Amino acid sequence: MAGDDSSIFIGSKPFMNYVTGVVMQFTTKDAKEVAVKARGKFISRAVDVVEVASKRFLEGQVELIGIKIDSEEFTNKEGRNVRVSTIEITLKKIKK
Amino acid sequence: MAGDDSSIFIGSKPFMNYVTGVVMQFTTKDAKEVAVKARGKFISRAVDVVEVASKRFLEGQVELIGIKIDSEEFTNKEGRNVRVSTIEITLKKIKK
Repeated sequence: MAGDDSSIFIGSKPFMNYVTGVVMQFTTKDAKEVAVKARGKFISRAVDVVEVASKRFLEGQVELIGIKIDSEEFTNKEGRNVRVSTIEITLKKIKK
Repeated sequence: MAGDDSSIFIGSKPFMNYVTGVVMQFTTKDAKEVAVKARGKFISRAVDVVEVASKRFLEGQVELIGIKIDSEEFTNKEGRNVRVSTIEITLKKIKK
């Protein structure tokens, strides 16, 4: 968990918005940890965001400290029980 | 890694094929560990397969022991460098 640190929730905005969001948390906002979270089809995108942010923009500056997957169940508009997968990927700033 | 144990590579076949594949590895084929692997957009699906197999069909019989994400780079048909994310989720049979 990111605790009182920041979370980035991945949705359908342009891809680089999320990458920039992660990078800015560590740089401008000096976050110690950032949790990248997504549900359903956005899970693939969350992995892409983490890979690009950590390997292209923050190489050597952050490390991946945890990946959690889970499911959420809820009732949709038609009254059916629906299960959706979730992911939470936590990056941590490397101390210099 | 699943070592000499089995891997299930997630693609575009019907969803339940993969769930059944994972379940069968642990039941019929008595695998100790199964690695569910995917690339790109199939990563979300891999998480769904693991969640459904482990929570609906193999509840209390398997545990999630590791999730790894990575990137692969390759040159596509147009000669461009392309990066694709990968995931590997490993389930292990719980000893009774």
